[in-house]
Amino acid sequence: MARSFCRLFGGFNSRNSLPFMKAPLRQPCASFSFKTAFERTMVALPLAFSSKPRDFSLPNSSWGTEMKRLYEHYNSPCEEEGEQGDKQGGLWRRLPSYNRSLKYATGGMYLSKVIQSKARLFTRNIRDPGAAFEYVLFVSKDKQKCVCIFQAGHLLEGPPGHVHGGAIATMIDTVTGTHANVLSAPVMTANLNINYRSPIPLGSTVLLESSLDKKEGRKVFFSCKVTSTDGSKLHTEATALFLSVNVSHLFGE
Amino acid sequence: MARSFCRLFGGFNSRNSLPFMKAPLRQPCASFSFKTAFERTMVALPLAFSSKPRDFSLPNSSWGTEMKRLYEHYNSPCEEEGEQGDKQGGLWRRLPSYNRSLKYATGGMYLSKVIQSKARLFTRNIRDPGAAFEYVLFVSKDKQKCVCIFQAGHLLEGPPGHVHGGAIATMIDTVTGTHANVLSAPVMTANLNINYRSPIPLGSTVLLESSLDKKEGRKVFFSCKVTSTDGSKLHTEATALFLSVNVSHLFGE
Repeated sequence: MARSFCRLFGGFNSRNSLPFMKAPLRQPCASFSFKTAFERTMVALPLAFSSKPRDFSLPNSSWGTEMKRLYEHYNSPCEEEGEQGDKQGGLWRRLPSYNRSLKYATGGMYLSKVIQSKARLFTRNIRDPGAAFEYVLFVSKDKQKCVCIFQAGHLLEGPPGHVHGGAIATMIDTVTGTHANVLSAPVMTANLNINYRSPIPLGSTVLLESSLDKKEGRKVFFSCKVTSTDGSKLHTEATALFLSVNVSHLFGE
Repeated sequence: MARSFCRLFGGFNSRNSLPFMKAPLRQPCASFSFKTAFERTMVALPLAFSSKPRDFSLPNSSWGTEMKRLYEHYNSPCEEEGEQGDKQGGLWRRLPSYNRSLKYATGGMYLSKVIQSKARLFTRNIRDPGAAFEYVLFVSKDKQKCVCIFQAGHLLEGPPGHVHGGAIATMIDTVTGTHANVLSAPVMTANLNINYRSPIPLGSTVLLESSLDKKEGRKVFFSCKVTSTDGSKLHTEATALFLSVNVSHLFGE
């Protein structure tokens, strides 16, 4: 049976990731007289040891107009009236995104310490905002759907001026894998079947929509489409199959 | 009909790519008295304007023992005796690999100048040797097979300690796409169907083998396997379909 790749987006990546070491290790000490000793201590601490990792799913300066507009659309806690006249909360829940797995889990016994310490999530491995994968995921309240707003940076080139097919496959794997983890964490990707319909220009923003097709025992089936943001143009469509597994499988226990 | 992604690896990327701008734009002038005027002029030229781009498929200091051993194996111009007793040249031909498409081709009319100038091939977008995709491709003399030696760097993490499924899909697309271009350039990826069997640890070296299955008009079909370097462990297997196209399709002409 097809088996592979424990996807731990919803599990490890969302809640337990380590800090993104963006800040320099040495920060100048704050010694202003009006600060309390506590404040001075806090400011003097290197940010690299901060306990709060960077959430890559939050807006940054590289986001274009369309990316920001859609973020606001899905992120707004819009209330809608239910069938019984009751007020419902937001229809979509944003999923945070970090660039590290659990430190203890990275590598197992067979990886070198160097690789363990330097490992970064493939889709979040470039610091420069807007250069590669800019994306944010939302899951629907009933968990049947997951949407992703994706702005493709200039470092994702495949054919001249267009996004690499592998980068699109990466986003499909990420979105369906995250969706699967919301439903049945942890899971492993078993199959991706991707039909490329029309190329995506570098720099453009597109929508990915993952839909739960069915669950059969340990198997979870999804469909996924990549379209223009208004839905008028189909770029890519795919199916994905994941298997729910025991997490110890990945660590060889 | 499924259509997408003109793969131009064998065409634009191999022969016409622009220089990898690794050197700073300003280089100090060489003014040693023993140099000729010609030498001084050459040294004073910024490397960014060099006409020789960096070939990423050549060995570098990050390559591990297995990567180097396999490179030597496929790269050696070993002679073998043919059926008629004649001497044959090397069985495999190395395919060079650059990080830029043709400048004029990058972007078309709708891309900003900034994106055009900064665009880099997805699989070669990180300068740090060994950090991401280290790979080299060879095509067989009869062009029926293509092999790729792939060393997976620490920036390709998906599940903890293992290579992201999207990074593997990217390499499958790259190897079969390059193979398709050797046979029928230019082509567009139409379908990738990928079965993940067992995860690939970060830092390890694996083999990808692409085999031509059949050609039907504009369609070219491939099979691709990702295995351990000794072939004993199957990590991933896939099929890929490409369509040969007129290059003007991509540029909207």
